[in-house]
Amino acid sequence: MPFKFINIYINRDQKKTLFQQIYEKIRDNILTGKLKPGAKLPATRRLAKELKVSRNVVMEAYDQLHAEGYIESSQGAYTKVAVNSYYERYQSGKKRKQPPQKKPINYDIEFRTGIPDLKTFPKNLWGSYLKKAVLQTNDQELGYYKPEGLFELREILSDYLYRVKGIQVEANQIVITSGATQALSLTAGLLYKDQCQAVIEDPGGYGVIGIFKRAGYGLSTADTGKDGLIPDSIKLMPHTKLIYTTPSHQFPMGSILPAATRIKLLNLIQDKNVFIVEDDYDSEFRYDGPPIHPLKALHPEKVIYLGSFSKVLSPALRIGYAVLPLSMIEDFKQMKRFSDAWSPLISQIALKNFIKDGQFEKHVYKMKKKYQRKRDVLIHTLIEEFGNNIQIFGENAGLHIVVKFHEKTFKYNENFEVCQNGVFIHSLEKHTINKGNHCDKLIFGYGNLSENEIISGIKRLRIGN
Amino acid sequence: MPFKFINIYINRDQKKTLFQQIYEKIRDNILTGKLKPGAKLPATRRLAKELKVSRNVVMEAYDQLHAEGYIESSQGAYTKVAVNSYYERYQSGKKRKQPPQKKPINYDIEFRTGIPDLKTFPKNLWGSYLKKAVLQTNDQELGYYKPEGLFELREILSDYLYRVKGIQVEANQIVITSGATQALSLTAGLLYKDQCQAVIEDPGGYGVIGIFKRAGYGLSTADTGKDGLIPDSIKLMPHTKLIYTTPSHQFPMGSILPAATRIKLLNLIQDKNVFIVEDDYDSEFRYDGPPIHPLKALHPEKVIYLGSFSKVLSPALRIGYAVLPLSMIEDFKQMKRFSDAWSPLISQIALKNFIKDGQFEKHVYKMKKKYQRKRDVLIHTLIEEFGNNIQIFGENAGLHIVVKFHEKTFKYNENFEVCQNGVFIHSLEKHTINKGNHCDKLIFGYGNLSENEIISGIKRLRIGN
Repeated sequence: MPFKFINIYINRDQKKTLFQQIYEKIRDNILTGKLKPGAKLPATRRLAKELKVSRNVVMEAYDQLHAEGYIESSQGAYTKVAVNSYYERYQSGKKRKQPPQKKPINYDIEFRTGIPDLKTFPKNLWGSYLKKAVLQTNDQELGYYKPEGLFELREILSDYLYRVKGIQVEANQIVITSGATQALSLTAGLLYKDQCQAVIEDPGGYGVIGIFKRAGYGLSTADTGKDGLIPDSIKLMPHTKLIYTTPSHQFPMGSILPAATRIKLLNLIQDKNVFIVEDDYDSEFRYDGPPIHPLKALHPEKVIYLGSFSKVLSPALRIGYAVLPLSMIEDFKQMKRFSDAWSPLISQIALKNFIKDGQFEKHVYKMKKKYQRKRDVLIHTLIEEFGNNIQIFGENAGLHIVVKFHEKTFKYNENFEVCQNGVFIHSLEKHTINKGNHCDKLIFGYGNLSENEIISGIKRLRIGN
Repeated sequence: MPFKFINIYINRDQKKTLFQQIYEKIRDNILTGKLKPGAKLPATRRLAKELKVSRNVVMEAYDQLHAEGYIESSQGAYTKVAVNSYYERYQSGKKRKQPPQKKPINYDIEFRTGIPDLKTFPKNLWGSYLKKAVLQTNDQELGYYKPEGLFELREILSDYLYRVKGIQVEANQIVITSGATQALSLTAGLLYKDQCQAVIEDPGGYGVIGIFKRAGYGLSTADTGKDGLIPDSIKLMPHTKLIYTTPSHQFPMGSILPAATRIKLLNLIQDKNVFIVEDDYDSEFRYDGPPIHPLKALHPEKVIYLGSFSKVLSPALRIGYAVLPLSMIEDFKQMKRFSDAWSPLISQIALKNFIKDGQFEKHVYKMKKKYQRKRDVLIHTLIEEFGNNIQIFGENAGLHIVVKFHEKTFKYNENFEVCQNGVFIHSLEKHTINKGNHCDKLIFGYGNLSENEIISGIKRLRIGN
């Protein structure tokens, strides 16, 4: 009773081994029903001869099919197709070709916010710190780690926050996160209750809206004027869990929340189960003096403080942190554990050494001067081009400014992007919840532009057409 | 009307600058009400003289207090404390000392599951790949990136999955995550609906339970026998959204799900809004042959496939991935975006090159031989010590085995840990939902133990006392 095993064709030039080809062909024939349950398979010796391959290869293929339950050995010498191994929906086939990636439209000058000067990122130095960090890791650091991250980094951060920003926190109140985005999304998850509400600044950060919505929050807004958030505009509901704010450098308007307003805000939530989420995303770059004293310092138990290295070093580091009231720390660590276990240790070790060696503050000092020059060029050129027709907001800090154009509006697309003459820029409308009030303002991110690009970008900008 | 500014004491040995000391002392005096709203501050020249510091320092401190809204300049030359700047709850104070970290109890031999051999992690090589990766980054890669991660890594992964595991996926169906933990937690978030249910294997992974519960799922169990998950034991509810399974190497029992059971499982969910989450956490280390053909290949639109580099390289990499049906990919990317934006690019570039250069498969080959030797020693010693009193499960793959001790149970603590004679090991009970059925089984993780440690650990294990 000879068995003709017609379906196997061996291709010796293929990427796949002979074993893989034989195993896959038989498997596919079983799954697609060409080899029916109960059908006998040829003896390995015979199939090997037929296919002109070594018998070992065929035996390996049979072993694999056996391990995966596609074939069964019966009492005697027979090997046969297992029962219930036909799957009508199975489609074998060639690997599909990758579709070409969509090419994004390119602008040669993009006034994007929140991007630091990427060209001055110290690649060589950081590369050496990373390499050294790998070599320094111990077994524990290479294995499964604690969700809160490297103790030594948290200790150095605690010191830094005390020295530079005047917050007194212990290392064990700090959790290292994968960027401030994760610090915020875990915070949102931590405070979440069914049907709950978050208050966010309007205008505020576009990305923030998405994070809270994704976490299930209803949103209400706090108006934001020239001095930042206006506590009187906040309507606290029974389900309000948190107020998200950027008091050191309001995003996007750039104001510093005054002391009296801070106190008012804290008094507003004092006896309520409402917390402040303070996002201190770029306060290192303040051109008129040192960073602003955080809200966190005024009432540590009511404020969750979020920090990031994305602006001061690079977003590529993906290192941020949350400083939590001690009462929340265990729950937050649990959130982190079930979210992504812990953040990569090697870059935490590298960053710890980078700060310890003084490289970090050196870098901040250098970048601050650089950004200040860029800002000066930006403002100078804006005034040169638009004179009294503009008003500038938030020029004292950070990597962007907001410019109001009197009695002019811009043509922007549905994403509130102005795209013209190779220049890309966002309308402030992008960052609002209540639409329609800020069409006359553009937001100029300048961190990653050269001085020449800034000048050229402004000159190419056309208003009102 | 001379103003006596008694509260400032300058300490020239402190870590803080003179500016910081003066600024902080005045600020704290205002916040605590020692300086009342409306109180006049001394002229900068006078205060400088009094404190024996340069006038610039005092001016800087006043500027900062002014920027933060603690003081106001009135018409004339006066500077006075701003209104509403007293905050009754404010506590200034010295930095608290860090409490000492709790020292965990140490065992010298720990049979922990899921930890690869950390001593053979190629630190030097990986360090060089990291450094090279930093130098290779372009501006886009150093800035804000796409949530799905590096295209070239996803392309190489698509190739690897096709070649080694026989799954046909496009690079744009793959999202790089921070370890398989994140891949799973994002998947849980993606499929979540109010009141929904997940089916998990019992026994199954302890960590998995936490991830689903944290995501809000109710849990029901699929019994797991010697051939893995038993589809007949699954009760699908109207709110069941997913079945989580480890078909290539059931965790913790180690079985391969047979072809007929796979088909049965897929038919079970065919016309329902239920998905399979396939966790392929360590199938590279199969000692009897190549990795098992994933469930994903049988019905790509119904299966979400999760992979990880934690076992094959190191958990320290924090790189995993999810392979999604095309219909889910945009939502998954959005989940990732709002969770932590994207995973670190530098290690993705390093890993891409590591695979491209053949280092990855070389490492897997080497480790497989190493683990196989360890497994052989483990089984040999177990049989030597316990003879016929044990039954071994799951010895054909992975970094752990399960051992059933006939008519013996172990003394374990509330975390199902057996700790004796410096040996640490988990009871299988740790990984069960329905408690009480697996007290007679221990789970021997051996990936990170030397052959001598394995032998010594087994010899020190005492049963029944």
